[in-house]
Amino acid sequence: MTLTQEQRLVLDAVRRVAREVLYPLAPEYDRKAEYPWPQLKALAELGLLGMTTPEEWGGVGLDSVTWALALEELAAADPSVAVIVSVTSGLPQYMLLRFGSEAQKRRYLVPLARGEWIGAFCLTEPQAGSDAKSLRAEARRVKGGFVLNGVKSWITSAGHAHLYVVMARTEKGISAFLVEKGTPGLSFGRPEEKMGLHAAHTAEVRLEEVFVPEENLLGEEGRGLAYALAGLDSGRVGVAAQAVGIARGAFEIAKAYAEEREQFGKKLKEHQAIAFKIADMHVKIAAARALVLEAARKKDRGERFTLEASAAKLFASAAAVEVTREAVQVLGGYGYHRDYRVERYYRDAKVTEIYEGTSEIQRLVIARELYR
Amino acid sequence: MTLTQEQRLVLDAVRRVAREVLYPLAPEYDRKAEYPWPQLKALAELGLLGMTTPEEWGGVGLDSVTWALALEELAAADPSVAVIVSVTSGLPQYMLLRFGSEAQKRRYLVPLARGEWIGAFCLTEPQAGSDAKSLRAEARRVKGGFVLNGVKSWITSAGHAHLYVVMARTEKGISAFLVEKGTPGLSFGRPEEKMGLHAAHTAEVRLEEVFVPEENLLGEEGRGLAYALAGLDSGRVGVAAQAVGIARGAFEIAKAYAEEREQFGKKLKEHQAIAFKIADMHVKIAAARALVLEAARKKDRGERFTLEASAAKLFASAAAVEVTREAVQVLGGYGYHRDYRVERYYRDAKVTEIYEGTSEIQRLVIARELYR
Amino acid sequence: MTLTQEQRLVLDAVRRVAREVLYPLAPEYDRKAEYPWPQLKALAELGLLGMTTPEEWGGVGLDSVTWALALEELAAADPSVAVIVSVTSGLPQYMLLRFGSEAQKRRYLVPLARGEWIGAFCLTEPQAGSDAKSLRAEARRVKGGFVLNGVKSWITSAGHAHLYVVMARTEKGISAFLVEKGTPGLSFGRPEEKMGLHAAHTAEVRLEEVFVPEENLLGEEGRGLAYALAGLDSGRVGVAAQAVGIARGAFEIAKAYAEEREQFGKKLKEHQAIAFKIADMHVKIAAARALVLEAARKKDRGERFTLEASAAKLFASAAAVEVTREAVQVLGGYGYHRDYRVERYYRDAKVTEIYEGTSEIQRLVIARELYR
Amino acid sequence: MTLTQEQRLVLDAVRRVAREVLYPLAPEYDRKAEYPWPQLKALAELGLLGMTTPEEWGGVGLDSVTWALALEELAAADPSVAVIVSVTSGLPQYMLLRFGSEAQKRRYLVPLARGEWIGAFCLTEPQAGSDAKSLRAEARRVKGGFVLNGVKSWITSAGHAHLYVVMARTEKGISAFLVEKGTPGLSFGRPEEKMGLHAAHTAEVRLEEVFVPEENLLGEEGRGLAYALAGLDSGRVGVAAQAVGIARGAFEIAKAYAEEREQFGKKLKEHQAIAFKIADMHVKIAAARALVLEAARKKDRGERFTLEASAAKLFASAAAVEVTREAVQVLGGYGYHRDYRVERYYRDAKVTEIYEGTSEIQRLVIARELYR
Repeated sequence: MTLTQEQRLVLDAVRRVAREVLYPLAPEYDRKAEYPWPQLKALAELGLLGMTTPEEWGGVGLDSVTWALALEELAAADPSVAVIVSVTSGLPQYMLLRFGSEAQKRRYLVPLARGEWIGAFCLTEPQAGSDAKSLRAEARRVKGGFVLNGVKSWITSAGHAHLYVVMARTEKGISAFLVEKGTPGLSFGRPEEKMGLHAAHTAEVRLEEVFVPEENLLGEEGRGLAYALAGLDSGRVGVAAQAVGIARGAFEIAKAYAEEREQFGKKLKEHQAIAFKIADMHVKIAAARALVLEAARKKDRGERFTLEASAAKLFASAAAVEVTREAVQVLGGYGYHRDYRVERYYRDAKVTEIYEGTSEIQRLVIARELYR
Repeated sequence: MTLTQEQRLVLDAVRRVAREVLYPLAPEYDRKAEYPWPQLKALAELGLLGMTTPEEWGGVGLDSVTWALALEELAAADPSVAVIVSVTSGLPQYMLLRFGSEAQKRRYLVPLARGEWIGAFCLTEPQAGSDAKSLRAEARRVKGGFVLNGVKSWITSAGHAHLYVVMARTEKGISAFLVEKGTPGLSFGRPEEKMGLHAAHTAEVRLEEVFVPEENLLGEEGRGLAYALAGLDSGRVGVAAQAVGIARGAFEIAKAYAEEREQFGKKLKEHQAIAFKIADMHVKIAAARALVLEAARKKDRGERFTLEASAAKLFASAAAVEVTREAVQVLGGYGYHRDYRVERYYRDAKVTEIYEGTSEIQRLVIARELYR
Repeated sequence: MTLTQEQRLVLDAVRRVAREVLYPLAPEYDRKAEYPWPQLKALAELGLLGMTTPEEWGGVGLDSVTWALALEELAAADPSVAVIVSVTSGLPQYMLLRFGSEAQKRRYLVPLARGEWIGAFCLTEPQAGSDAKSLRAEARRVKGGFVLNGVKSWITSAGHAHLYVVMARTEKGISAFLVEKGTPGLSFGRPEEKMGLHAAHTAEVRLEEVFVPEENLLGEEGRGLAYALAGLDSGRVGVAAQAVGIARGAFEIAKAYAEEREQFGKKLKEHQAIAFKIADMHVKIAAARALVLEAARKKDRGERFTLEASAAKLFASAAAVEVTREAVQVLGGYGYHRDYRVERYYRDAKVTEIYEGTSEIQRLVIARELYR
Repeated sequence: MTLTQEQRLVLDAVRRVAREVLYPLAPEYDRKAEYPWPQLKALAELGLLGMTTPEEWGGVGLDSVTWALALEELAAADPSVAVIVSVTSGLPQYMLLRFGSEAQKRRYLVPLARGEWIGAFCLTEPQAGSDAKSLRAEARRVKGGFVLNGVKSWITSAGHAHLYVVMARTEKGISAFLVEKGTPGLSFGRPEEKMGLHAAHTAEVRLEEVFVPEENLLGEEGRGLAYALAGLDSGRVGVAAQAVGIARGAFEIAKAYAEEREQFGKKLKEHQAIAFKIADMHVKIAAARALVLEAARKKDRGERFTLEASAAKLFASAAAVEVTREAVQVLGGYGYHRDYRVERYYRDAKVTEIYEGTSEIQRLVIARELYR
């Protein structure tokens, strides 16, 4: 890839913090299932929690290509940190930037972009994973605003985030609301016990008679689902980039291991079956990254990128699952051991086929886009 | 399958204990990573730890087909218990029965078959996963026996088992020794922290100047590798059956979930993409089981079954990984949650592609057998 | 497999005629796209066109397991001949035996079983591939029988067969009729130009005011679709066996080639990538065959085998496509050349995923059976 | 993709000639296995046989990205024409441009670039498919030049091409020679009968005491293999682009068919299984194209692109085989019929995994590059 001087500098900085801060801490935070505050602070200091938000709103105004490459780097070091970054920047910040009022941007986008705040995206509900239209959370109009009731599930950073973008049903359809942490009636479940991504807490967000003032309605009433879907287009590029990073993180360990370890009198990499596996892993990662960049470039050109975002997410998440499976295989017994990192990538990878729209949802989106 | 009356009775008993004892305890033992003694005792009472050992040696004298079907049932309920049973019966008991002396059978096979003892198989070493020929453990001949030194790794039931069949190098090649727990110089590492199969402890077995009397040499000196490989043929049928059970355990949950859960206004199973997934999962499991039974039948006929055992293990372990991946997918977010079991099957499945010979080793064995 | 003495004798005879008659003629009949009359006559002489029909009706009364293994042998030598045999025995003879009257069996089953006649199965129509319920052919009741009108497409042996089992709509639903070649109004299209299976002519069967006497209604009026579906269960076992044979035919050539050909100073089979490919091909074939035998055994036990037949066809047809793809790959450029047979197996294999119910239809059937 | 105005114009012209000339003629030239001279002439008139050769040497001086996209368009219409174009431009012209003398360029590159001549690349020999180092053709130094003897096989455009770049062994290693059609001793075999790509004749090139003057040695003596491998890097980008085009050609037919055809009362595209298939096919094509463009961009930047070329070829050729398989499946019986084009794409696709280095060779190259 030809990168500009600025892109190169950013990516160098990202790589450094990934290597020096994220990578060493990743195993411990996975084991303890602890939210990675120190890592997020280190990223915030470099402006990396508001990469694509313009400088006037507290961000660093990078293009989506750089953002995607940066997320890949973060995920290669620690997939949990990467998804938190992807969500806060790809969803709330993106939605605020596109649909928020001047005042909302000032109040919410700026601290999010500066990394002082973390943002959460609250669409999914217990009974409705990917089926956004059946959502039940309600916002009842009252004097001066709305009162929200409902339960949101699988919310990344729930309890830690300061701003919650909540989709709820109003008279005019689904609307999007900006809800601050600390608002009376807003509470959180305990972090779910997941197979992987332990450090990226997800939990229920519960809204019981939560008052939200008029000025915290995002954009127009009734347009919330459209905003959420636009957010998901952006978020999916982020998840796809994260998946590429997970695959790459595991690949690099497997590649290095195959260069050291001997079996039957020669290095693993000299066994054709292993060398070919390494080659196939590389190609899958390269193809996944190429799709991510294609989606990011289209987004940067201001064109509709729904098809490309879903294609990138579908392909990259499958690649992450398959490449990490092979990475475990290359390491053999060690691949199955918690001390060798690749088992963690294997556990982390699987969720990329599920969140922000399962692979089945991506195929629906792609088919629909192809026949538009 | 047409089963005899006896086979049917045994499998009914297995199913009952699996459902009533193993299934309810599986999640807790996984979380606590505790060795499943109560479950093993329940199985021992039914004679299920010595299924294929003849009655004269304390077992119940079943054929391998029944053994394989029973292991599948156990694994569908708890893969950790299944592998312990598979190892103690498929490896030490099988080797003792085929290569042991009358006295060795009386002393070791009987308590193993009765389930009073658990057996362990000690071939793998830290530097040599599947490369048996490069093993370093040594047995030096002394008056009245041998003195063993070496380290064995990834040993299922290490520390819990009472009998260790240890392969070590002597002047005449690799030989197999029967080492009792409690022998001076025999010690164990801490259980490895693995991605899955938490209850099936594996650990290092360390031998430092361990004296083993002459009568504990299994069969002839220098024939130990041949015995171990024969054991592995048998053990691989067991692992393949376990893999089928893992796949089936996850499949059954996914199938039931698809019948309950609704998305977009209809049951998951009425979505063609899910129905087709369920169909494909079933077919993989059916094919895997058919290969396991083919290997078991050949073993029962007393024919060479090396090819069939490796084919069954190769196919069934891949099926386990792929079917559990799809089971997680069918459950969506819940599939990724520790409360819903399928994530555990997903973690457990992966090791079946690794232990008792990686999939790469199986392909080597198959190719060699095809060109014999 | 343990075979009885009789099964062994039959399979020996099949293997001999396959090797001596079918194999040498296969390339020429493919190139000329000629219907394989001499081959069918050689098989008829051995009773191989009526394998599963009881001796009292002119057949040899073999079980379905032997029939499936025999079809595999035929297909390994010439897939076109195999499908003709599969159709005439698996569909018309099977349907006559199960649903035909004494008189129909005497008149039609006997010459079919003896191989004096070939039978055809006429369900598919131009607008309805696998969607049997939308069929348009009509049978209007007239004095003494029915008058049939309609067009059937993709009919194996059309124009060559002597008996056509035709499904057509009557007042009471879909009914099955026995139509003899030579009946006025019955005509045939030209053989379709297909990618493969050139010798197994398929063509349109056209019915224009074809009078069929009352006694040629098969079974009860209105039950024709049920009979056809029962026939397809049987036919699918035959196609699955054919697919196994196609895969095996290609595999054997690839395996032998890998033993002869050298690249980079050693035999192909000594390159791990090729040895592993050969191993994987073998395992797919073994699994496919195991599923075929499972379905055949269930059929032989008189149990419902719809699920098993569809599972066998789904898996075996995919295996045929994948194994032949790899066989071409093993031979490299020669694999792509018409002189080396494997390209023909590759072209022939693809249709097994399509006819007698596409793979998509098999998945529908399997899912339906799983949730019965 | 953002294309320049010039790129857009070229691609529009390519699309027009593809649609108006190539597409209508493709079925007939496949059936007759006739070399596509009229099509090549139509392309030559537009300068499309010398796309990447600079204008000063008779070409149009386009970048590799445009060349790759153009080859995709040609292959989507007629894969046989595409490979001829890919070879003449990607190999002989590329090698002449990089390694040829001024005089050689004037004499050979100009007519090739103008499309007055077609070029052939003669590396493969009967005993050595991908194993270039074992080649046997010899060039013996004589007064004023060399005398060549040997046999080259699978040579695209053999007999039709005017210039043959022949790799042969000299004292200093493998050297590359420019041999004109009509040179005494140069003769050709009959076109091979292949599974597909019928119009792209390949045949043996035989050299018996062929005198080649000193000035027709390409570059330095002994550097021929390096030149050939450089040519193959370029050629592989072309083959990869061709594979993308084959996949796309089949995909477009399947996509359109799924929009028209009804089954079970609704359009195929409304059946989730078909819609998902269409989505998956699209994603594979998109990923393949993205890898092709990545390789082309790297080539255009003048960087080493060996890894990217092999990755693109490996992935795109597999995608072509898999996508065409699914396209046949979408069309069902019609997919297997020669009148519906997709069976031809299926036959054509397979060779892309074989020529200009099999997929196994690509994996070797990729692994070697990864560990450089």
